[in-house]
Amino acid sequence: MTIRPTVSLRIAQVSPLYESVPPKLYGGTERVVSYITEELVELGHDVTLFASGDSVTSAHLVPCTPKALRLDTGCVDQIAHHFVMLDKVFECVQRDEFDVVHFHIDYFHFPLSRVHGIPHLTTLHGRLDLPDLPPLYRRYSDMPVVSISKAQRKPLPFANWIGNVYHGLPENGLKPGTGEGKYLAFLGRISPEKRVDRAIEIALKSGMKLKIAAKIDRVDREYFETEIKHLLNQPGIEYIGEIREDQKAEFLGNAAAYIFPIDWPEPFGLTVIEAAACGTPTLAFRCGSVPEIVFHGVSGLIVDTVDEGVAHMERLVTMDRAAVRRVFETRFTGSRMAQDYVNLYESIVNAHPAAAQVPAAGATALDTYLSL
Amino acid sequence: MTIRPTVSLRIAQVSPLYESVPPKLYGGTERVVSYITEELVELGHDVTLFASGDSVTSAHLVPCTPKALRLDTGCVDQIAHHFVMLDKVFECVQRDEFDVVHFHIDYFHFPLSRVHGIPHLTTLHGRLDLPDLPPLYRRYSDMPVVSISKAQRKPLPFANWIGNVYHGLPENGLKPGTGEGKYLAFLGRISPEKRVDRAIEIALKSGMKLKIAAKIDRVDREYFETEIKHLLNQPGIEYIGEIREDQKAEFLGNAAAYIFPIDWPEPFGLTVIEAAACGTPTLAFRCGSVPEIVFHGVSGLIVDTVDEGVAHMERLVTMDRAAVRRVFETRFTGSRMAQDYVNLYESIVNAHPAAAQVPAAGATALDTYLSL
Repeated sequence: MTIRPTVSLRIAQVSPLYESVPPKLYGGTERVVSYITEELVELGHDVTLFASGDSVTSAHLVPCTPKALRLDTGCVDQIAHHFVMLDKVFECVQRDEFDVVHFHIDYFHFPLSRVHGIPHLTTLHGRLDLPDLPPLYRRYSDMPVVSISKAQRKPLPFANWIGNVYHGLPENGLKPGTGEGKYLAFLGRISPEKRVDRAIEIALKSGMKLKIAAKIDRVDREYFETEIKHLLNQPGIEYIGEIREDQKAEFLGNAAAYIFPIDWPEPFGLTVIEAAACGTPTLAFRCGSVPEIVFHGVSGLIVDTVDEGVAHMERLVTMDRAAVRRVFETRFTGSRMAQDYVNLYESIVNAHPAAAQVPAAGATALDTYLSL
Repeated sequence: MTIRPTVSLRIAQVSPLYESVPPKLYGGTERVVSYITEELVELGHDVTLFASGDSVTSAHLVPCTPKALRLDTGCVDQIAHHFVMLDKVFECVQRDEFDVVHFHIDYFHFPLSRVHGIPHLTTLHGRLDLPDLPPLYRRYSDMPVVSISKAQRKPLPFANWIGNVYHGLPENGLKPGTGEGKYLAFLGRISPEKRVDRAIEIALKSGMKLKIAAKIDRVDREYFETEIKHLLNQPGIEYIGEIREDQKAEFLGNAAAYIFPIDWPEPFGLTVIEAAACGTPTLAFRCGSVPEIVFHGVSGLIVDTVDEGVAHMERLVTMDRAAVRRVFETRFTGSRMAQDYVNLYESIVNAHPAAAQVPAAGATALDTYLSL
């Protein structure tokens, strides 16, 4: 247990520029950056956020592009804007404005962070099982990185993992619901790896209603038309399109259960803890981070097949919703996430040759965090 | 006029990894990198080429990925491989292995090149009229860049242009043809900005045959189906698909004229000088680099409208093919291109604080090159 020092840290948060912080619509990474940033400010730290200019934050905002790139139809070269941001970040670094820099932009800063030798860390938000990444992370195996689940690390065991920090949500955001809508809920995207077809099959076989709230990206349009559309015309299956952030509480809270039938190494799965915040148990397929974020028998059930999901339906929809919510409150709140990161920041600052800001009493060896 | 010093330079060429050097199929940038590299070796310089591992060169090859990324179907994150390459380049830089580093990878190295303060230059191969680029080039306005036409510079007048070097081709590559096929030739891609529809209209109105050798990228498939396909069923219009490098000499050399009816700010237009190497005059629309690479009345004709093109057809197809070839030989050979770059390298090396390799007698102020 680290004793938190009373001094506040000067922390930079460096967000991707694809969505604003928080995003106006979809956008998992930028939403998590927003949660971290606001919680750190709440804890009394001096936080600077590098993000798109339409971001909204209680930290100091350094706008790195006028608006979020994904909504900017004139934008062709998204990476160019990230190189502008890098220059702004390291301009501040050279003026010694931060005790630690927390990057959320994958590897884009690695060459510069290494040259400057600053105290920094990078949360890797995406899937890491791409064949392109091992050569990169072998080359940059000195760069301190943080996983969002232990499963996410598997393809890159040689990266310099300094910790694992599960995502968290504001404790007073999503409120517990009653589940009285008595339907299964599917939330997210229609795409091959999300396997909404499995959700439909389970609902039909177990006689449950299914409500599907999902967007369809352009790349998935053909998949939707050929594989999914005809499945939606069956009794009890309702496709309601994409929903807004402020509609989530009702959609998830009224569901008897959330269904997460994924077929890819999901690095985290934010919707699962959103469901838990609403007291809604999750039926999830064993894949990626699932065994780490669904507590089998408490916050949901983990299965390997459609038939197993059908067989467990009665048990699933009668789970104790208060117990599901408690899993959220004890493990997946934003304040827990922020405190995990503060612990990492302190260990990094104290391990850094130029460390001076944080009292030695608060120092903790990096080793402690390797076992996190 | 710079007097070329007798010492050889240690030069790094840093190529994109999308295609091999030279490319197996399409790929303008990597092909030009190959021409520069081979000509520099021929001139007696010590050249190291950073490129994909399936590249073929007489320089020292540092393979940065096993094979060209565009042909590697497993590749998802192309940029990751370029970050591996950057690390390899700067590892050598730190061992002081090069007098000058010549980048062809846009801005990817700017942050690192600035920190390391090495003698370097970057040839910008692409279109620069994207709204994303001015903020970047204002931030990195100290980075020495080379244009491939003066027209290319227009959107970024504030960049640090140290020279303009037109592309060149090996003098003994494409041989002069006779033009006896008596057709108009169109070569490249079917896409909205290439305006093959204009080529078809001009051919029909002037009673000429037209042969179209072009690939269709996936993104242009719909454009082809809806806008172009039905135009190909007209008398005298022949679509022959994509052709290989070794088929170009015959295709261009047998053509009465090459037609280049572009509708975008083409930064260079390699096919125009390929046609000239074959002695084939070009009918080009006034756009981007065209007035710099087509010598109106000598190597081709420049027009603004389809009707103007039709009106000039008789003059075009009776132009002196030997004169066209002479334009190529005097202005667009690979050896001229390589010598232009050597002049730039020498000025950069001599202007660099640590300059020691090149005798002062060969020194030329950067200013000289600003007017190139």
